[in-house]
Amino acid sequence: MTPYPPHTDDHAFVLFEVLRAPQTLAPLAAMAEHADPDLLRQVVDEAAKFVGEVISPLNRAGDETGARWHAGAVTMPAGFRDAYQAFWQAGWPSLACAVEDGGQGLPTVLEAVLYEMLSGANHGWTMAPGLLHGAYECIKHHGSPDLKARYLEKIATGEWLATMCLTEPQAGSDLGLVRTKAVPLPDGRFALNGTKIFISGGEHDLSDNIVHLVLARLPDAPPGPKGLSLFLVPKFYDGDGAAPPQAKPTDLGGSDVHAVTSVGASTRRSAVHCERIEEKMGLHGSPTCVMRFDDAAGWIVGEPGKGLNAMFVMMNAARLHVGLQGIGLLDAAWQKADAYAQERRQMRAPGSTSKTGQADAIERHPAMRRILDAQRAWIDAGRVIAYRTALELDVQKHHPDADRRAAAARWCSLVTPVLKLAWTEQAFHGGSACLQVLGGHGYVREWGIEQHVRDARVAMIYEGTNEIQAIDLLLRKVLPDGAAAQQALLHGLMAELDHSPQAERTRQALERFGNFVQNRLLPQTQAEQAPADRAHWLADDYLRALALLLMAWAWSRIAATPGADAARWRGAENGFWRWVWPEFEMRMAMLEAGLACD
Amino acid sequence: MTPYPPHTDDHAFVLFEVLRAPQTLAPLAAMAEHADPDLLRQVVDEAAKFVGEVISPLNRAGDETGARWHAGAVTMPAGFRDAYQAFWQAGWPSLACAVEDGGQGLPTVLEAVLYEMLSGANHGWTMAPGLLHGAYECIKHHGSPDLKARYLEKIATGEWLATMCLTEPQAGSDLGLVRTKAVPLPDGRFALNGTKIFISGGEHDLSDNIVHLVLARLPDAPPGPKGLSLFLVPKFYDGDGAAPPQAKPTDLGGSDVHAVTSVGASTRRSAVHCERIEEKMGLHGSPTCVMRFDDAAGWIVGEPGKGLNAMFVMMNAARLHVGLQGIGLLDAAWQKADAYAQERRQMRAPGSTSKTGQADAIERHPAMRRILDAQRAWIDAGRVIAYRTALELDVQKHHPDADRRAAAARWCSLVTPVLKLAWTEQAFHGGSACLQVLGGHGYVREWGIEQHVRDARVAMIYEGTNEIQAIDLLLRKVLPDGAAAQQALLHGLMAELDHSPQAERTRQALERFGNFVQNRLLPQTQAEQAPADRAHWLADDYLRALALLLMAWAWSRIAATPGADAARWRGAENGFWRWVWPEFEMRMAMLEAGLACD
Repeated sequence: MTPYPPHTDDHAFVLFEVLRAPQTLAPLAAMAEHADPDLLRQVVDEAAKFVGEVISPLNRAGDETGARWHAGAVTMPAGFRDAYQAFWQAGWPSLACAVEDGGQGLPTVLEAVLYEMLSGANHGWTMAPGLLHGAYECIKHHGSPDLKARYLEKIATGEWLATMCLTEPQAGSDLGLVRTKAVPLPDGRFALNGTKIFISGGEHDLSDNIVHLVLARLPDAPPGPKGLSLFLVPKFYDGDGAAPPQAKPTDLGGSDVHAVTSVGASTRRSAVHCERIEEKMGLHGSPTCVMRFDDAAGWIVGEPGKGLNAMFVMMNAARLHVGLQGIGLLDAAWQKADAYAQERRQMRAPGSTSKTGQADAIERHPAMRRILDAQRAWIDAGRVIAYRTALELDVQKHHPDADRRAAAARWCSLVTPVLKLAWTEQAFHGGSACLQVLGGHGYVREWGIEQHVRDARVAMIYEGTNEIQAIDLLLRKVLPDGAAAQQALLHGLMAELDHSPQAERTRQALERFGNFVQNRLLPQTQAEQAPADRAHWLADDYLRALALLLMAWAWSRIAATPGADAARWRGAENGFWRWVWPEFEMRMAMLEAGLACD
Repeated sequence: MTPYPPHTDDHAFVLFEVLRAPQTLAPLAAMAEHADPDLLRQVVDEAAKFVGEVISPLNRAGDETGARWHAGAVTMPAGFRDAYQAFWQAGWPSLACAVEDGGQGLPTVLEAVLYEMLSGANHGWTMAPGLLHGAYECIKHHGSPDLKARYLEKIATGEWLATMCLTEPQAGSDLGLVRTKAVPLPDGRFALNGTKIFISGGEHDLSDNIVHLVLARLPDAPPGPKGLSLFLVPKFYDGDGAAPPQAKPTDLGGSDVHAVTSVGASTRRSAVHCERIEEKMGLHGSPTCVMRFDDAAGWIVGEPGKGLNAMFVMMNAARLHVGLQGIGLLDAAWQKADAYAQERRQMRAPGSTSKTGQADAIERHPAMRRILDAQRAWIDAGRVIAYRTALELDVQKHHPDADRRAAAARWCSLVTPVLKLAWTEQAFHGGSACLQVLGGHGYVREWGIEQHVRDARVAMIYEGTNEIQAIDLLLRKVLPDGAAAQQALLHGLMAELDHSPQAERTRQALERFGNFVQNRLLPQTQAEQAPADRAHWLADDYLRALALLLMAWAWSRIAATPGADAARWRGAENGFWRWVWPEFEMRMAMLEAGLACD
């Protein structure tokens, strides 16, 4: 196994040269003091050091030992707890949390770089802190003052970890089918009853407490998604300032109000039980838990019936993180393939001028070079788009100009599902291509590349399946406003292009796509006589086409950056235009064919 | 876990209705008595029964227990040996072996159907007998009369299993780098020394003996592939009629001739040692062995220096089998996804007319229907192409007309690498798409679909990596004869099309591709000033384009078959034209772009 060493010069080139992050952050009052390139670079380097020295070496044990369940408790692989304690105590989870909440107030993009590196180094371990920032935003924006006083700083600093408890056996993509019940208690809290599945980090020994954010239904709630409310139930009530509660149903006569029985400190543990953990294809370093809520007392977060709204704050943050996981995992696989291809010698490469008569390094063979250049093109463009999205998250919050804030919100809304779908698919399929470079050695565990492929597969499923991302983008974000936001995004991309041949090609494709959506896709899906399911059939191709346009924009921007004429960037640029971009034509053909179907 | 039940009506429709196998076989004297459709169908049904009842139930244990190594011995999972003994004793391995060799003389296509079913049911177990037919052909065509007398019937019947020992640590795709040495012994045999890796079934307890076919280098052999010879070394000499030998080097003075020391029956075991087995991503039911040959005595197979020729007989048979593995694995994954999609209810489907207000089965959601129809299109077309290839193998051997035999040889030569590459990629990527239908349930082991994806991944690597298949097709089979064979293949496909709209579309695409190859690809890769590596860059896209053309032909043929208007076939046909075929345009664009590069 080769551990994953983040190559910070690559991240820094995208952040400082291509995206000029300090210039984007300078107008933001909250960020102005952090817009210093030296400080940002220093954080990137420190993150890489921590990831490389502390987190990466645990990856193999995470896969081989894995999380182990016994009698309701989950033991994490050796070293995982110590690494997590070092992680939060060093302040990494609070990097982008507000100073008043115990955070460091640094730009969100640094957190993005950190989590991309962490995911590449050790996807399983990174699942644990991966939900923290979403939980922080959720509690900050929807929690009552009392709840914030109890939990916000603990979550901001990462001293306590968090989960999202959404899925139930009968309710996956369709959260409207959630059945978990929340019944009011006399003290203003609620008693939760139900079973949640696929709960990442539902139980573990990494942190001293775990904070569950749980979708459930109040007694008088209507069926469907509008009947869902969000609740917070901790693993331990200790230390949160609340009385040690134990909810017990006392009224069997029809009232839904429960009484609370105070019990001793030994039962400060809440009635949330981890029933088992799943056996999975990969991601063994992260326990995927079945959680039973057995009259577990918790607080409501936000308004009754607005649980999905509150949860979506968390899910959108998580979706960007999942896109970053894809980029990190693909880079980890790529680094292994690249190292192998430089060392492994097989046959003469065609046109080889090597005089020794010996076999050439396989990186010189076209079939291998193609894989390496095409996958590098995905990673680098993915970074440009993902880091840009992270910058826009801060612009959206802090820019003095309302129009600029609106444009940033548009970017984040439209681009996040693209990142989530396209880069999680690429982590799996492109990771598999990198595995192919190692031949049979890629299929055996020794080199560690097959673990990346197994781990990566889940990212296409969780935080909203990739099919849900595509529907979210086209059906909920693009069509309802007559593609106004999408057109504004496309024009914004065009405005950032220079006049190089590849930029002109990109501009033409952006125009063509915009015209197609305005003149064909919109009228032919929105007309009254259009089949009700037509847009659904097109959602995946629509998103893939937009992903390729964003990549074309990203590669045009990279090419326009001083320093991008180095072989390392030129090879990937060539990889993009030659082996990635042609998919755009295929997606347009599929969209056209879809419009022609009844 | 759902066991894999082959749906024999689907296989039979392709075999009897689409391909009209009995009519193809009728002119072959050797096959005439087996051209009876009832007999053929009966074998298909019996095969499905055996596969479903005996082999499929062992699949999960194969993955979870796996093959275990201890002190040089490999213990197979519970039930594997009994199943194998039942398999060979029932005559399944000898289905398509000649009657005079102890076989049943049935058409090769029945063996193809059998191995496709077996692979879908239990890829790991099927690896063991999977190399038998290739070993049979290799010994039959290249073995000396003495060697045939010792080994041919045992291999034909499958009483003894066989391996291919090619790869060494430094020699993977480049077999010219093989270092294993073969030194003549006084008794006419050879003493082999060297280490082979990635040897499927190198050691196990399924059969009473294992016959290794080994590439090695004679003392006076030149370097490179022309210095390789093929040898046969059994695990046990017992029962083969030979004296119990033990090779020992006696002459340290430079002579390469070894003396044989006769020893007792306790050492009738040859000096072939299984040093360890690999930990792999999947295929745990098949031991992937490191084999050390330690002065192991064996026989030469064929002429000195012609080892690769003899081995290629085996590898070509194996490549068709690997393509069939892809089809079988994809079908197994598809059956699970289809069953799940019929049961699982989430949300209303767009345009749903369900009156209950309840969620619809997810098979009615466009995103899921698309996956199911597109992957079904791959499976069904794959069967048409693979079974046709198996029929052509018999035509090539037994048809009275020399031109027809030549056409069949052309088909097998050109289409086998296409099947191997395209359907192994599809088993992995399309299997992953089927996994996606199950959402989170696909990622956990319970449903068994993730095992298919892990198992399938290796098929893109072994028996010649997929990159080697593409190079083999374009560089070794298409370009050297000025694309004459390819043009004949394309014209043959055209001649089998009717005049339906989809057949006309197929015909146009075949013509366009043929013209592109003749007028653009050939001159621009073969011209003296063309870059030496140009064709190498194009090989993958060339093969993928040809795969799509073969699929278009297959779907045109299916559509022209009475009975293909059933919803089950129409859905997959629609899946092909809408979501599979558009890749053709992308490949043509990539080929065009490749010709424009220096």
